[in-house]
Amino acid sequence: MAVDAQVAIDLLKELRALTADENGAQRVAWTAKWLEARAWFQEKLGPLPVEHHLDAAGNSWTTLGGESPKALILGSHLDSVPNGGWLDGALGVMAAFVVLSRISTAFGGKPPVTIRLVDWADEEGARFGRSLFGSSAFAGTHTIQADRARTDANGIRLEDALAKCGVSIASIGEAQVERSNAAAYLELHIEQGPVLEKLDLPLGVVLGTKGVERHVMTFHGQEAHSGSTPMSARRDALAAAAKMALAIRPIATRYPDAVCTIGSLKTFPGIVTAVVGRCEATLDQRDLDAGVLASMFAEAKRQSGEFAEEEGCTVEWSRIWNIAPEPFHPDLIRLCEEAIRETTGQAHRLPSGPLHDAAEVSRSGIPTVMMFVQSLRGISHNKIEDTREDHLRLAISAFDRLASKTIAWIAAHP
Amino acid sequence: MAVDAQVAIDLLKELRALTADENGAQRVAWTAKWLEARAWFQEKLGPLPVEHHLDAAGNSWTTLGGESPKALILGSHLDSVPNGGWLDGALGVMAAFVVLSRISTAFGGKPPVTIRLVDWADEEGARFGRSLFGSSAFAGTHTIQADRARTDANGIRLEDALAKCGVSIASIGEAQVERSNAAAYLELHIEQGPVLEKLDLPLGVVLGTKGVERHVMTFHGQEAHSGSTPMSARRDALAAAAKMALAIRPIATRYPDAVCTIGSLKTFPGIVTAVVGRCEATLDQRDLDAGVLASMFAEAKRQSGEFAEEEGCTVEWSRIWNIAPEPFHPDLIRLCEEAIRETTGQAHRLPSGPLHDAAEVSRSGIPTVMMFVQSLRGISHNKIEDTREDHLRLAISAFDRLASKTIAWIAAHP
Repeated sequence: MAVDAQVAIDLLKELRALTADENGAQRVAWTAKWLEARAWFQEKLGPLPVEHHLDAAGNSWTTLGGESPKALILGSHLDSVPNGGWLDGALGVMAAFVVLSRISTAFGGKPPVTIRLVDWADEEGARFGRSLFGSSAFAGTHTIQADRARTDANGIRLEDALAKCGVSIASIGEAQVERSNAAAYLELHIEQGPVLEKLDLPLGVVLGTKGVERHVMTFHGQEAHSGSTPMSARRDALAAAAKMALAIRPIATRYPDAVCTIGSLKTFPGIVTAVVGRCEATLDQRDLDAGVLASMFAEAKRQSGEFAEEEGCTVEWSRIWNIAPEPFHPDLIRLCEEAIRETTGQAHRLPSGPLHDAAEVSRSGIPTVMMFVQSLRGISHNKIEDTREDHLRLAISAFDRLASKTIAWIAAHP
Repeated sequence: MAVDAQVAIDLLKELRALTADENGAQRVAWTAKWLEARAWFQEKLGPLPVEHHLDAAGNSWTTLGGESPKALILGSHLDSVPNGGWLDGALGVMAAFVVLSRISTAFGGKPPVTIRLVDWADEEGARFGRSLFGSSAFAGTHTIQADRARTDANGIRLEDALAKCGVSIASIGEAQVERSNAAAYLELHIEQGPVLEKLDLPLGVVLGTKGVERHVMTFHGQEAHSGSTPMSARRDALAAAAKMALAIRPIATRYPDAVCTIGSLKTFPGIVTAVVGRCEATLDQRDLDAGVLASMFAEAKRQSGEFAEEEGCTVEWSRIWNIAPEPFHPDLIRLCEEAIRETTGQAHRLPSGPLHDAAEVSRSGIPTVMMFVQSLRGISHNKIEDTREDHLRLAISAFDRLASKTIAWIAAHP
């Protein structure tokens, strides 16, 4: 029997009706609407011969016991950003549900390996600014001390919001027990970018998540009167930053999948009658290859110094955040490629720019791969986020094939 | 007898002690501290054989009657920006005072032409955002309807602040009666820029005030995820704006005294993880030649369209404000040049980038010229604004010479 993709699509629509308003999905983690979504999903699982519990970090686990305790984990997240889309995260959870249902039926409730469905807690970090919350606790890369002090826009502490959902921040590390017997992790997600649409392909194999170097560059020049200061006497911090905004592009395009972005640029004093004395710009650099990432960072830093000098300015760098690239498992990448090719005839390989729970799972040593389905217009984190229904059907079908191949792979690797 | 420059310098220091705090001068127009400065100055005028009154716009007029009713007007402004310098405006008023005193003494209280000292009301526009308030009323270029609705940072209306100082906004246009018999206007001011200091010259002849074209350029691109959007798929509004920030420089340096400035640049959504979807940048362009100004504006507009197209963006322009250049009177420019050359040996001609009350006076058809004295580090509107005392002495001496030459010029042009 085949996996029932229509059930997954219908569930996604039902979830949208339950948790979206006119501005989009509102399933922000640690809120009532998120708990409502989880309770609704729990009900859908009811008829299956499964065990269910929340782990110490609030991740929701549903387990279909198999002949072997070795487990294939399928998952994603039900939480959304505020005013989010109907597919980001939820697609992966509903796909996992119909695949688990199909396997349960196919093997009379007892598949050769254990199948687990996980709904990670707070992938987005939308309310407290801490993304991959639950999966990092699972992976053991959590940061309790740093997170304890986080507050939301209303001053409510993360610790208190967790407590309301039955999670004690001090013990989230205990979620690591869920790693025992984990043999592989698979996640289906919308691409959230324009690559597959440009290639006119429904599906892609994700090679891993890119590493990120994120910095603030501050150019210091000399504030001066825009009317009385000749062009030759200026030390314009914006000019140095503008050169940088253009230079990051050749730095990135030297490599096939690298990206460099200045997303925020601020001018000080920032008034129409003053030459810019100080300019702050954020730089976000990403690549799947750690060496490429390091080279791009060094090159940007070197050029920023040159531009500052050319403009009679100075430049300071301050790291906001960074994370290493996380390449996925080569065997599972191959299986994913086969599953897609068997479903659509053509498989494209691409890295993921956005981070995903799968990166944390992979970082903890569990063989992992993700599958992407095309996003219309490449838009996500927005109510207009969408994917064609025939592409959703292909995705769920290919993901089900990947699950079958992975079960065989686990069985063959004792 | 010579003009007593030391008296002017001593008065400037006395005024600083009276009206500055640890952050600089606080003589903001329409405030108690400004009224205090004006009352203090009125006392200093007491011993002179003069008539005094405020006009309908709050400009303060002190008149030494002459053989002819034709009047030489000397003036500047006592008001300052918040945290301003000790010389901006006040130097011109104190210089006018000692020159008027010298002329009164020299001619036994009855010079060949009438000499008038004016302290313009609210040159800076610091509190309500309307600069050249009093001089524009004098010139008949005032804008009562537009100004009536202005409020300060505390929501107090301009109209009410004026009323407290005895000025009715409805009748400020009556200040135009002060133009009768006006034959020439002279103003000494600090340069507020770095040109004279770079040339190592104490004094300069001001050719006029530059015209200004002030616009907001808005580049529209496509907001996109910084991780998932390949470099080739981006429509980065910041890239178009960055090209513009660099292109305005060759546009300006094609002309000897032109300036172009992007003082404020804002990115939207302005977050580290998003390609900039919209970028707003202010552009301030200035030159003394109306043709040059028009060319620079047209060239900037043309190039902005090209950059937008190159980046897959669009661009809109919106005018914030503009004003025509105001060249000063050629005869008075020549007299000012002579006065400076006779005082220091060398006269440099330069346009004024900042606006001054003199521009409004000149626009009303009264022959006008300004003299600049060097500003240390080119800094003004700041408590560290300063000028060497020997330069102040040279300036007052040269300004006195200019007054004498102008009296003769008025007498010779019936």
